[in-house]
Amino acid sequence: MSSAASPPPGSPVCGSTVPGAPAPGSPPAPQVPDEVLLARAYLLRVAEPPAPALARFVEEHGPVAAAARVRRGEVPEPVDGETAARRAADRAAADIAAAAACGAWLLTPEHDEWPQWPFSAFAVSADPQLAAPLALWVRGPSRLAELCERAVAIVGSRACTSYGRHVAQELAVAVAERGYTVVSGAAIGIDGAAHRGALSIEGPTVAVMACGVERAYPAAHETLLARVAAGGLVVSEYPPGAVPAKHRFLVRNRLIAAMAAGVVVVEAGMRSGAARTAADAARLGRHVMAVPGPVTSGVSAGCHRMIREGAELVTRPEEVLESVGRIGLDLAEPPTGPGRPTDGLDRAAVLVHDALPARAPRECGWLAMEAGVPQDAVRVALVELERRGLAEHREGRWRRRPQCAP
Amino acid sequence: MSSAASPPPGSPVCGSTVPGAPAPGSPPAPQVPDEVLLARAYLLRVAEPPAPALARFVEEHGPVAAAARVRRGEVPEPVDGETAARRAADRAAADIAAAAACGAWLLTPEHDEWPQWPFSAFAVSADPQLAAPLALWVRGPSRLAELCERAVAIVGSRACTSYGRHVAQELAVAVAERGYTVVSGAAIGIDGAAHRGALSIEGPTVAVMACGVERAYPAAHETLLARVAAGGLVVSEYPPGAVPAKHRFLVRNRLIAAMAAGVVVVEAGMRSGAARTAADAARLGRHVMAVPGPVTSGVSAGCHRMIREGAELVTRPEEVLESVGRIGLDLAEPPTGPGRPTDGLDRAAVLVHDALPARAPRECGWLAMEAGVPQDAVRVALVELERRGLAEHREGRWRRRPQCAP
Repeated sequence: MSSAASPPPGSPVCGSTVPGAPAPGSPPAPQVPDEVLLARAYLLRVAEPPAPALARFVEEHGPVAAAARVRRGEVPEPVDGETAARRAADRAAADIAAAAACGAWLLTPEHDEWPQWPFSAFAVSADPQLAAPLALWVRGPSRLAELCERAVAIVGSRACTSYGRHVAQELAVAVAERGYTVVSGAAIGIDGAAHRGALSIEGPTVAVMACGVERAYPAAHETLLARVAAGGLVVSEYPPGAVPAKHRFLVRNRLIAAMAAGVVVVEAGMRSGAARTAADAARLGRHVMAVPGPVTSGVSAGCHRMIREGAELVTRPEEVLESVGRIGLDLAEPPTGPGRPTDGLDRAAVLVHDALPARAPRECGWLAMEAGVPQDAVRVALVELERRGLAEHREGRWRRRPQCAP
Repeated sequence: MSSAASPPPGSPVCGSTVPGAPAPGSPPAPQVPDEVLLARAYLLRVAEPPAPALARFVEEHGPVAAAARVRRGEVPEPVDGETAARRAADRAAADIAAAAACGAWLLTPEHDEWPQWPFSAFAVSADPQLAAPLALWVRGPSRLAELCERAVAIVGSRACTSYGRHVAQELAVAVAERGYTVVSGAAIGIDGAAHRGALSIEGPTVAVMACGVERAYPAAHETLLARVAAGGLVVSEYPPGAVPAKHRFLVRNRLIAAMAAGVVVVEAGMRSGAARTAADAARLGRHVMAVPGPVTSGVSAGCHRMIREGAELVTRPEEVLESVGRIGLDLAEPPTGPGRPTDGLDRAAVLVHDALPARAPRECGWLAMEAGVPQDAVRVALVELERRGLAEHREGRWRRRPQCAP
């Protein structure tokens, strides 16, 4: 069965030709026993995620024993509530085979490349809905744990503006250039722009789906998803064939949040799934960031609300990386305007500079009166102003020196 | 002299015809002795504001004695530094006469309508540059103390966009409608839009100038300033004839900040005077608010930096009023999107609703399997979904009920 779960390198990816060169890291060598894979595949389908009671039960008994007891209905009441409806249907082997036919396989907590550290956030979360996934269907050559080591989620509205699309793509390019994985949800709008930004510089990107990993959903993203699968990873906790039901988008969002060190919401309306991703991220201890926009734009309203409620306002990739990056190392230079020749002058010099006539020069006494600065201080100020090329004198009288345009 | 400082009602305002009806509150009856007015007028011109040492000296000795000692040069060193250059020139009487010729007069801390409470913030500030004004030249029918009781400052860039102008004006209209005074700096751009917003509904507005109150500066705002003076107040600590030197705009900003309960920065570049107003406001214990905009807009960059550094992001007048208004009374309703028929459904009902087929109806067992919800719970959920008009059944089979477009 492991051979079914881990297809030989070069096997075709369902229905789409994979563009570009063969992936560098081909699927992992068998390392997890078939019985574990089968048990996890069964458990993943038997309960609709998130299944906190089942997750605890599996944690306690191990996947093989847990699966056997679920099958027989010998489980505590909360687990029964999550599994009773589907426990009779065991399609584990078929799911693994269907996945293999698309170049996908089942990544389990028993695999080396399971993102153990990022997903440990689920264990400490108090919210039962933030349950860890029991396993993940993955499609693509990359190792998920590695991709999650340095990752930023960039998410937002489907109904975005060209402004939002532009910002999402630029942000994705910039973080991918610095070696960060761009995690998103493959939706049209902001998500798509984020994936495209990363792909445009062959940067790593992960698409977390609300349906089977073999599905081209949305249909308009068929090529995009094939490109993500070719160079990064398409990931889902839903088995092959699963349809993208509405609630699954919300449930899926916790995985996007968990896989990244921080979530950037680029555009979001008042009722946006991105707000849920941000809320999940906050509860998982991730940095929550939002990009502002015009207050007249409905698709920035959600971002503004998040910022008012504590999310960090970000305007540049440097600010995002400062938040998710290494403490004290990935610091953003504070933005500044262009320097001016009067920067750093003391108060007396500023007053004298303001008082200097533009044309007919004047003597110190006049300047002292005009500026309200004692004559001694005027003389000191004029030396400094002349040194900076801001004042010039003729026969003991001073005037402002014309500045060249910058 | 008091009669010169307080012109008879109906005296013409310099060079411009005042539009609208005669002002309700005409200039106050004489209440402050001439010698105090003359002393304060002299002190106001003798030192370039802010003059913290002189302010303390006047506080200690009273204006009349302080003025006499300054004239004679019998002052401690710090006061001498602030007053030496101009102490010989006493133009107090001329300034009062020139002001009167424009319908302006000198408001002093000895007047009832001095904004004692707002300006007490200067006394507690640790920054010597945040010194209280020694008096203020005012032009207009309103009482400053009353105007400051409920006031919001709206400031921003001269080089604003049409977006910023629109937001500033709408904000000013909304806060003026609720009885708040709009305080600003009469500059072109955001300031002008703020004053215009208030004037458009005959709301109170105060223009704080960096030059004499009789000057039409900027020239393009001559009519605007005349309208402010007709219904609100034009205010300055610079005497009649004073020119708007560069540093005076920055020094003036502390007065804008002090007169309002909060400052809203609408658009500001990285090096904007509005940033100085915001900084002064923070040091004076005022609420600092900023309006976001596109991250691609240079004139929103200053606002975004302020928000990152702690200013409150505001998008609506309600949010501004919540911050400056009465605690617990002027609360903004949190913005929400339109309600959806599925709002408030429990998890099982959401799962069942997602599983319901759109066309051919299915029975409970199928729905339980599809939704991953036990059959008992499916039945309970269907009752609720039917009650909400979200599900319908035919011969024991269920399907989704088509929703009318909202």
